[in-house]
Amino acid sequence: MSGNTFGKLFTLSTFGESHGIAIGGVVDGCPPGLALSEDDLQPDLDRRRPGTSKFTTARREADEVTILSGVFEGKTTGASIGLLIKNTDQRSQDYSKIKDSFRPGHADYTYQQKFGLRDYRGGGRSSARETAIRVAAGGIAKKYLKENYGIEIMGYISQLGPIKIEKIDHTITNDNPFFCPDESKLDALEQYMRDLKKEGNSVGARVSVTATNIPLGLGEPVFDRLDADIAHAMMGINAVKGVELGDGFDVVAQKGTEHRDEISPQGFYTNHAGGVLGGISTGQDLLVHMALKPTSSISISGRTVDIKGESADIITKGRHDPCVGIRAVPIAEAMLALVLMDHLLRHRGQNSNVDSQTPHIPASRD
Amino acid sequence: MSGNTFGKLFTLSTFGESHGIAIGGVVDGCPPGLALSEDDLQPDLDRRRPGTSKFTTARREADEVTILSGVFEGKTTGASIGLLIKNTDQRSQDYSKIKDSFRPGHADYTYQQKFGLRDYRGGGRSSARETAIRVAAGGIAKKYLKENYGIEIMGYISQLGPIKIEKIDHTITNDNPFFCPDESKLDALEQYMRDLKKEGNSVGARVSVTATNIPLGLGEPVFDRLDADIAHAMMGINAVKGVELGDGFDVVAQKGTEHRDEISPQGFYTNHAGGVLGGISTGQDLLVHMALKPTSSISISGRTVDIKGESADIITKGRHDPCVGIRAVPIAEAMLALVLMDHLLRHRGQNSNVDSQTPHIPASRD
Amino acid sequence: MSGNTFGKLFTLSTFGESHGIAIGGVVDGCPPGLALSEDDLQPDLDRRRPGTSKFTTARREADEVTILSGVFEGKTTGASIGLLIKNTDQRSQDYSKIKDSFRPGHADYTYQQKFGLRDYRGGGRSSARETAIRVAAGGIAKKYLKENYGIEIMGYISQLGPIKIEKIDHTITNDNPFFCPDESKLDALEQYMRDLKKEGNSVGARVSVTATNIPLGLGEPVFDRLDADIAHAMMGINAVKGVELGDGFDVVAQKGTEHRDEISPQGFYTNHAGGVLGGISTGQDLLVHMALKPTSSISISGRTVDIKGESADIITKGRHDPCVGIRAVPIAEAMLALVLMDHLLRHRGQNSNVDSQTPHIPASRD
Amino acid sequence: MSGNTFGKLFTLSTFGESHGIAIGGVVDGCPPGLALSEDDLQPDLDRRRPGTSKFTTARREADEVTILSGVFEGKTTGASIGLLIKNTDQRSQDYSKIKDSFRPGHADYTYQQKFGLRDYRGGGRSSARETAIRVAAGGIAKKYLKENYGIEIMGYISQLGPIKIEKIDHTITNDNPFFCPDESKLDALEQYMRDLKKEGNSVGARVSVTATNIPLGLGEPVFDRLDADIAHAMMGINAVKGVELGDGFDVVAQKGTEHRDEISPQGFYTNHAGGVLGGISTGQDLLVHMALKPTSSISISGRTVDIKGESADIITKGRHDPCVGIRAVPIAEAMLALVLMDHLLRHRGQNSNVDSQTPHIPASRD
Repeated sequence: MSGNTFGKLFTLSTFGESHGIAIGGVVDGCPPGLALSEDDLQPDLDRRRPGTSKFTTARREADEVTILSGVFEGKTTGASIGLLIKNTDQRSQDYSKIKDSFRPGHADYTYQQKFGLRDYRGGGRSSARETAIRVAAGGIAKKYLKENYGIEIMGYISQLGPIKIEKIDHTITNDNPFFCPDESKLDALEQYMRDLKKEGNSVGARVSVTATNIPLGLGEPVFDRLDADIAHAMMGINAVKGVELGDGFDVVAQKGTEHRDEISPQGFYTNHAGGVLGGISTGQDLLVHMALKPTSSISISGRTVDIKGESADIITKGRHDPCVGIRAVPIAEAMLALVLMDHLLRHRGQNSNVDSQTPHIPASRD
Repeated sequence: MSGNTFGKLFTLSTFGESHGIAIGGVVDGCPPGLALSEDDLQPDLDRRRPGTSKFTTARREADEVTILSGVFEGKTTGASIGLLIKNTDQRSQDYSKIKDSFRPGHADYTYQQKFGLRDYRGGGRSSARETAIRVAAGGIAKKYLKENYGIEIMGYISQLGPIKIEKIDHTITNDNPFFCPDESKLDALEQYMRDLKKEGNSVGARVSVTATNIPLGLGEPVFDRLDADIAHAMMGINAVKGVELGDGFDVVAQKGTEHRDEISPQGFYTNHAGGVLGGISTGQDLLVHMALKPTSSISISGRTVDIKGESADIITKGRHDPCVGIRAVPIAEAMLALVLMDHLLRHRGQNSNVDSQTPHIPASRD
Repeated sequence: MSGNTFGKLFTLSTFGESHGIAIGGVVDGCPPGLALSEDDLQPDLDRRRPGTSKFTTARREADEVTILSGVFEGKTTGASIGLLIKNTDQRSQDYSKIKDSFRPGHADYTYQQKFGLRDYRGGGRSSARETAIRVAAGGIAKKYLKENYGIEIMGYISQLGPIKIEKIDHTITNDNPFFCPDESKLDALEQYMRDLKKEGNSVGARVSVTATNIPLGLGEPVFDRLDADIAHAMMGINAVKGVELGDGFDVVAQKGTEHRDEISPQGFYTNHAGGVLGGISTGQDLLVHMALKPTSSISISGRTVDIKGESADIITKGRHDPCVGIRAVPIAEAMLALVLMDHLLRHRGQNSNVDSQTPHIPASRD
Repeated sequence: MSGNTFGKLFTLSTFGESHGIAIGGVVDGCPPGLALSEDDLQPDLDRRRPGTSKFTTARREADEVTILSGVFEGKTTGASIGLLIKNTDQRSQDYSKIKDSFRPGHADYTYQQKFGLRDYRGGGRSSARETAIRVAAGGIAKKYLKENYGIEIMGYISQLGPIKIEKIDHTITNDNPFFCPDESKLDALEQYMRDLKKEGNSVGARVSVTATNIPLGLGEPVFDRLDADIAHAMMGINAVKGVELGDGFDVVAQKGTEHRDEISPQGFYTNHAGGVLGGISTGQDLLVHMALKPTSSISISGRTVDIKGESADIITKGRHDPCVGIRAVPIAEAMLALVLMDHLLRHRGQNSNVDSQTPHIPASRD
């Protein structure tokens, strides 16, 4: 599996290029009996979809997913689930410049070196278009987790360029084009993005995802810790350069007395750990953060080399997100759902008969 | 494989508890013909070994590794390599307090909930003692990578509590008890650690690892990107709460013009990406950073619950590192070596016949 | 991966039911640069296709495969390859009998018990229809193996019911509806099948596959031996109940002097081993045999139980092969190609730099 | 994992050569809470142990297994279990002949070609000595399966050279040196083996394994069928050349009416399928058969080539089993236990909440 399969028991294998016929995937290991239709998956696809606001790429894709198998009379059968999304807006374009030069900050150069050739149309396999299938597959996981365990997964932008959100009110998060939970920042965000677009530049972002009602005991000690698998999942999203659990890099300057989450019979006092201890879920909320780089596809000229290794200048025209972090929000949610689903099945496999011999401590004292 | 196997083609499967008879592992997939003996692995084990300075745990372990198989007449045969390290200093101790209560910030609570029982002696499987085998296995990978590709892997402390290093001079990194590459900070570090110990507290740290002479083309697009697998590896080290490649979380506030590493025929102008584009190595240096939390084993009383779920206070006596980040340096190096080795074999499997059709760009313009 | 992914480096993940919208799959790990189009895959699909002779099921499927990704400008890119075959002949039918009873010898009962529900239309996922995608994926492997190593894979019927083939002449194998390499048996086969059909019964078969020009050194010692993985692949084909390498079950009565394949500088004297020693290919021809049971879908009434556990009688009407062994020939070839391709990449990963230090012995003295 | 790891959720990774320091392994994924000590594993090791009868190799190994981890206060903890067996009888020997020539029928030639070097002492990794660890690991699986599900696994010799057993009475199977369940054949077996030894020759054998009280629903459709994974496991045992489920190769000549196992509310009428339909267990007894070739280590001279590719003659002196099939009996049991354990955990992972909606049919009408 050269990198296109994710997970161990609940798996997703994907295919498809930005400008090919279609993208798709196979979800394997889904428990049978889950009520499922395309309508369950479309809302998250629509959240990720390009062309929905003036702050994302102008490419318009319907992103309509079809479930090709694994569902019978409205329920999952336990068989593998085929997913397909046709590419509709493969705008014909002049690729001559991209074809012969390497865009700095892109996968152009590394793909060419690794494979000896590359599908230069819109980035081919390296395009974020591939993540639409992750969102569809994550939707299946989300539904199972919510219906069977009450797990809720919520993503949002916690910083965009210099603008940090200061308040979390999820009643507005999905109602603005930035997945921003802080109403007081919406105007600033809009102004910032407008200026950025005018400038022809791009900017980074910090995306956060939380999950609540997590069953205790998910995650494997040592290598396949829950947090290690979350880090793998998130760092595997295009443009992500950093991943944190709980307090993340703030722990560097913390003391032991400050960091350790003390416990009372009424619940944990704090959640610096972000819901994971020793690689295993505590039942507290999962708190995950990630840093996304500014997209390198900008309309300001940059220095590079061409395919012969000679100096060149390049401007990436076309329809690109000035802040790829925004649309990463539903992708990050989907990846977290896939990790949780996989670990849930793994945990049931090994430990379904376990009596923990000790009470469950509430997630928090609230 | 419930979390105790790492890698896909070059794999490490480990076993062993802190206070059991021995810890050990199986390294599988090593190419044949590599000259190998215990002497090649011992130096890194000695760097990780507890009891070597007054700033790490007082536990004394010889940490002498034995190669049980896979080497014949001084060379690897291609068969699996058995590694064994006996536990020698399993000091008899009173575990009654730890046995019945959950240390805040530890895996005690999650192990008990997941498995219904736990080996409470010294943390059992959750102890960092397990990482000694990773260091031994990483030593095999390091040797192969160096001899066949010239790859050099170097770890160091880049911040300890409030003290940030400002200069990198690796001629001193391995000659001080902090793996600190900045001579001007050694006195401050020593003073800080002395105060911390007196206080009975612990502190976090930032560990960095770089690797040079990286072959171009390592890493798989989409899920098993080189950076995603590095994140998995590093977040799987005890106490790690965050992982960054290149500029990491600094990218949040960067613009596209600032972040993209421009290219010239003489080399890349910058390395904000940390050596990976689109999940694939660029040939530039790998730059990896991680945040380690302060150990929760401190001698300042904390609030917790006992096994019956009732309120309790707990002090963790015993021999513990006030800053676990320090000894994590050789562990992080080993994990990076394992990831690189695995991806090297994967790359050779799929792409050994590829002609890249384009020149290699030097890592930097120096 | 709940059983729908095959292989480790060169992988196939499949989906799709007999009477769903489509069947499909993802091939991952294909080396880049292989010239590939649908035309390369269609011939084997046509060989497997139902409705091509009066001795296979009357179901008519065009079985036209579409390559959805992973190929650009006529060559594989190294990215995952999406394959899709639409189901066209999902004849509307009365499933009420099959729905409520378990056909003896079928997967009906076990699917219901394992999953709590099942797609009863034409067997759903347990239908041999699923194997069409294996044939398409195997076609990719076959092409790579042939173009890069000269490997040829050839399957045939070596016994059908009581009729054993006695002569192998592959110039006729693909020109008769039985994949029979012995012209002298064609009349007997035709008569036997005609009688069988009249009787409303079915019969078993023995299928053989050979592969020539096998590179030396494929296969991993211990668990993932080449022969072990071939056994896994073949026993994973619908209706297979036995697998043999080389002399197979005849070895039970052989003596050591008789079985061991002696060696001369001009080549091996014999090939009792079937091309594998110690789990690793010798360079001799691979000789694989398998036994396929008679299909249980027959029009002679059988005793069973219904979904409430009560006695019932059942006749399986519909369009079924009286000898499923016949159409298994291209499937077995495809599975062998997938195994060889996977082990080729694995071998290159670990051993691409090996100098064997000893001459290659020719496959045979001819 | 280059072939030295077996299984997906319940895994065994092994190491060790015939004449090295020790052999060992890591068992991962064992459910916690299983009472376990070395005493549970030793009986099967003693059954496999060489030197226990005059009909097996004269090599004497205590084969005392040590559990190095994963067990605390007499119970498994859920952590990985380290197993170690020291090699004690590594008789010093003259290997000059074996070193420079390839024994026909051995892995000598293929190991040399694949790896460029080999551990020629006693066959190194290709020696059946490696299987001792499989037997130890299988003992853990056997105990879990028996205590939690009542599963019993029983192996025996069903044919040795020309002598076929005709009666199965398992009260004597483990009380004779042949694992023969037919008392009337014991004298013939003893005479045959005595003659064979005198002749300096070896002979093949057929080994059978049955398992009873199998839970319904084990096995995954398509590639990882229960029978496919059993075939993988058995063909991965040294010297095995064929594997059958149920009627095996007899199905070739069977008709559908004859083969299909009809069902009544009181149980299945027959068990031609050997306990698996559509890759999933029916609850009937598992019936597995395998063919083992005669060992090639015989004291009758054979033709071969030396390491320079020149003609040579070779006699394999030393301590070898004239019929390796005999000692394969406990190995085959162990491998079946490992497969069942793995599929049990996989099944629990995906389907632990399933209500089958239909009664369980008894395994047979008895």
